[in-house]
Amino acid sequence: MKANIEKVLRGDQLAGAKLIRMLEEGDPSGIEGLKALYAHTGKAFVLGITGAPGSGKSTLITHIITELRRRNMKVGVVAIDPSSPFSGGAFLGDRLRMRRHTEDEGVFIRSMATRGHLGGLSKTTCETVMVLDAMGYDIIIIETVGVGQAEVEIAEFAHTKIVVCLPGMGDEIQAMKAGILEIGDVFVVNKADAPGADDLVAQLRGMLEMGAIPQDAWHPPVLTTVAVNADGIVELVNAIWSHRRYLLDSGAFNRHNFEQTFQLLRRLVMEMAADKIFSGSDESTVHQTLLEAVNNRKIDPFTAAETLVKDLYGNI
Amino acid sequence: MKANIEKVLRGDQLAGAKLIRMLEEGDPSGIEGLKALYAHTGKAFVLGITGAPGSGKSTLITHIITELRRRNMKVGVVAIDPSSPFSGGAFLGDRLRMRRHTEDEGVFIRSMATRGHLGGLSKTTCETVMVLDAMGYDIIIIETVGVGQAEVEIAEFAHTKIVVCLPGMGDEIQAMKAGILEIGDVFVVNKADAPGADDLVAQLRGMLEMGAIPQDAWHPPVLTTVAVNADGIVELVNAIWSHRRYLLDSGAFNRHNFEQTFQLLRRLVMEMAADKIFSGSDESTVHQTLLEAVNNRKIDPFTAAETLVKDLYGNI
Repeated sequence: MKANIEKVLRGDQLAGAKLIRMLEEGDPSGIEGLKALYAHTGKAFVLGITGAPGSGKSTLITHIITELRRRNMKVGVVAIDPSSPFSGGAFLGDRLRMRRHTEDEGVFIRSMATRGHLGGLSKTTCETVMVLDAMGYDIIIIETVGVGQAEVEIAEFAHTKIVVCLPGMGDEIQAMKAGILEIGDVFVVNKADAPGADDLVAQLRGMLEMGAIPQDAWHPPVLTTVAVNADGIVELVNAIWSHRRYLLDSGAFNRHNFEQTFQLLRRLVMEMAADKIFSGSDESTVHQTLLEAVNNRKIDPFTAAETLVKDLYGNI
Repeated sequence: MKANIEKVLRGDQLAGAKLIRMLEEGDPSGIEGLKALYAHTGKAFVLGITGAPGSGKSTLITHIITELRRRNMKVGVVAIDPSSPFSGGAFLGDRLRMRRHTEDEGVFIRSMATRGHLGGLSKTTCETVMVLDAMGYDIIIIETVGVGQAEVEIAEFAHTKIVVCLPGMGDEIQAMKAGILEIGDVFVVNKADAPGADDLVAQLRGMLEMGAIPQDAWHPPVLTTVAVNADGIVELVNAIWSHRRYLLDSGAFNRHNFEQTFQLLRRLVMEMAADKIFSGSDESTVHQTLLEAVNNRKIDPFTAAETLVKDLYGNI
């Protein structure tokens, strides 16, 4: 294991993939590996790219990778969208475009195909980002579909959040009203040569202006791309860079990282406490007795949970 | 509060709405209300209806409500999809169709518009279902978009899970491969008069057969509907009833309820333990010191979390 960790720190892709697989499978040695890696994390810049299936975000990402490689950055990708070409649900064109990246040592692509417990998706994503960070990738791109609460929150984990929209998607705007508009740092209208693109740009700018952003805060730009032709990619990467500069200069970067650390620590504490409280499947244990009582409506779950936490608190 | 609880138990919609709002806002009296209600829950049958935005599931639901009312059932609806007409993102036709239900005392519709922490969505949904259950609704319908991990897991909370698909949606099938296929108890091909409907039905049946379901287990039927004409609704409600019968006869109903009780209790325990451990914002507290140390990479988050849980375990 120790030899493997040293390989991961040197950026060995096979060793990295092996560690990520261990973490996905819940192998305890995986966590031991992360403990050893943790001191080497915190250097990567995390980019979240979110958009409905079919918005062309995977094609966009392949071009962003090319541009970032041109700027001499190592790039990691974590794909959440199960229909993403990065996850194997690929269209031939995408696969061909991506081939040059999969053969490039400076690019590492992982897809989170598994769907576990609630929070399982964000847990594995967070751990995978840690591994990629320790491996020395400068930029880590997280690709998510823009629907779903867990998915939106994974995007929030990123330093810069890019929202990809398509002309003529009415549902898209509906979904945005419900939360995606607030999380975007950069908006991209892809397929900008399609009818309705100008309208969508105007609509987005209008909605963003309604938000009345303070003058010294970040004003999310609305950019246009035609991903299949790689049009607008340089401008997009420049916008990401401007946002990164803004985060660093305003102190928002450090605040974001601190908040993410807190969320991680809180999640770990919750899991460990629950594991302790629910350990042992013997029917005579307090938690089994209380669970039966709740199930039979003899006691309410809130009072039962208070008792269990108090019990952990009081004993030993 | 006590007077309000009695009203909720009598099915008073204003009192129910008030309690749900308190729970959404995290008002502690809301939880006190749930404690008092809990003994009266566990009677409702929960129906999960999931499908991509635009699959027509809201229209389907309005017709299902009509059919259930005809069978003399009281129906509650909890809508999660932010683009759902139930959540206010309505198309005029849907709104008109729904009007007769909103004026019916035997129907109660709530939409979960808020998006809180990870797990916040499922928490509020679970609490709202409890309130509707205690109010005496026989059937509670949860409407979710079929994308997103939290949304899929909310659907899993239901006794019968209905997956709505549309002909010509390639992405739909992709998403199903990634998990939705496994959760469906009843599949509905809506807009069955559109081209490609027969193909989709055949495709779905083929995929389900590949799953090699044991002979005495439930075999999910694939039904067809044309929701705008209310075609196929009686057959759909009959299929739900067959599944309910199967669950009751096989013992799966009780197992499902027990598992849901366990998940609820575990979630409550996690939250209470974390609240205890992270209480106090004084910089000298152990959790603040450890959080700083993790953020500065002086200690890894796993070791820090272990220390915090042990601390709670050991002291007082």
